[in-house]
Amino acid sequence: MLHRRDVRGNNFLADDVPDDIIDRILRSASLAPSVGYSQPWEFVVIRDAAIKAKVSASFELENKSAESAFADDKKEIYARLKLEGILEAPVNIAVFYKPEEEPVLGQGSMPETGQYSVVCAVQNMWLMSRALNVGLGWVSILDPLAVKEILNSPPANKLVAYLCIGYVGEFFSTPELERLQWKARKPLEAAIHRESYPEDTNVNKKIQAPII
Amino acid sequence: MLHRRDVRGNNFLADDVPDDIIDRILRSASLAPSVGYSQPWEFVVIRDAAIKAKVSASFELENKSAESAFADDKKEIYARLKLEGILEAPVNIAVFYKPEEEPVLGQGSMPETGQYSVVCAVQNMWLMSRALNVGLGWVSILDPLAVKEILNSPPANKLVAYLCIGYVGEFFSTPELERLQWKARKPLEAAIHRESYPEDTNVNKKIQAPII
Repeated sequence: MLHRRDVRGNNFLADDVPDDIIDRILRSASLAPSVGYSQPWEFVVIRDAAIKAKVSASFELENKSAESAFADDKKEIYARLKLEGILEAPVNIAVFYKPEEEPVLGQGSMPETGQYSVVCAVQNMWLMSRALNVGLGWVSILDPLAVKEILNSPPANKLVAYLCIGYVGEFFSTPELERLQWKARKPLEAAIHRESYPEDTNVNKKIQAPII
Repeated sequence: MLHRRDVRGNNFLADDVPDDIIDRILRSASLAPSVGYSQPWEFVVIRDAAIKAKVSASFELENKSAESAFADDKKEIYARLKLEGILEAPVNIAVFYKPEEEPVLGQGSMPETGQYSVVCAVQNMWLMSRALNVGLGWVSILDPLAVKEILNSPPANKLVAYLCIGYVGEFFSTPELERLQWKARKPLEAAIHRESYPEDTNVNKKIQAPII
């Protein structure tokens, strides 16, 4: 967990990742928890350069519009960041959530737990990859509908994650966005509360000052 | 990963889980990947019996209405399942997503990756708990707004997971819903596609038969 990193195109090697390694990574996904034991994950394993090129084109479009969301000083840094490795990684895996038609035990009150199960599977893949000395990067700067169309996905499925997988030059000792001073590590203690949130964090106070 | 289990109230021991163990579990959460290194997780650690009782009451309400979603034969089995350990587990942890006010790198095209980051943190907690021989169960049969109110959560935060944590009688060798024949393990191979989904899985065919 400590040594897991998000790997981008500046760090992937061209060396092929053999099928038996990809199989072990997919096997780890299938060991993830899932709401009502629904196992609602599907995987598209991509090695084809033409398909990667189409996904990469979607990234370029989305990335250009994402850049404009940042203030001028951050915009310049943003433009220099290498944020994905779609073409550089020998293997891409698109991970989908496939909803069930029947009701799923435990999913009625919080329907998003279906997608969450798929995210647990992705985190297993990330840790298993690291244990096998394989790098993994999650690309979220994509139009999910465009990727669904490129991969011929059934309409009901939802793209949860698009992963780039390959051997790496090195695993950095700290996250890249920390190293490049985009963002600092937050102190964990500030994120922990005991028994409940303190009263004064709640903006919608129930007890208001009496009107005089 | 292979030996991780969802633990319920039929299997938690009353033995206390010391703070240093809970701290290690929370530390593992903070090592999770997060979109744009946003680290958007917050944790409420609950040991107070009165707060647990309120959350448990929300579970009972939701569970009663969840039961009615199933057909008659499954309804009976459902009613006999023990699906949570809110009162039995010495420690509960509510895990929240706290959205940032500023734009987050990588979150523009897929806003749900904020919550997904929190799910990655939960999966780290699950695996770290198992490595420490501590059981963890994720309760999703809850009204998230009711739990937010009980815990005095800021309105903008979203409840992602409610976890029950404690030592266990045993870790079962297979998932409980498999053992109780509620659902079987799916063959992994059926969930894997190569390069793209096959043409015929797509209901919205682009090429239609010519109209004569």
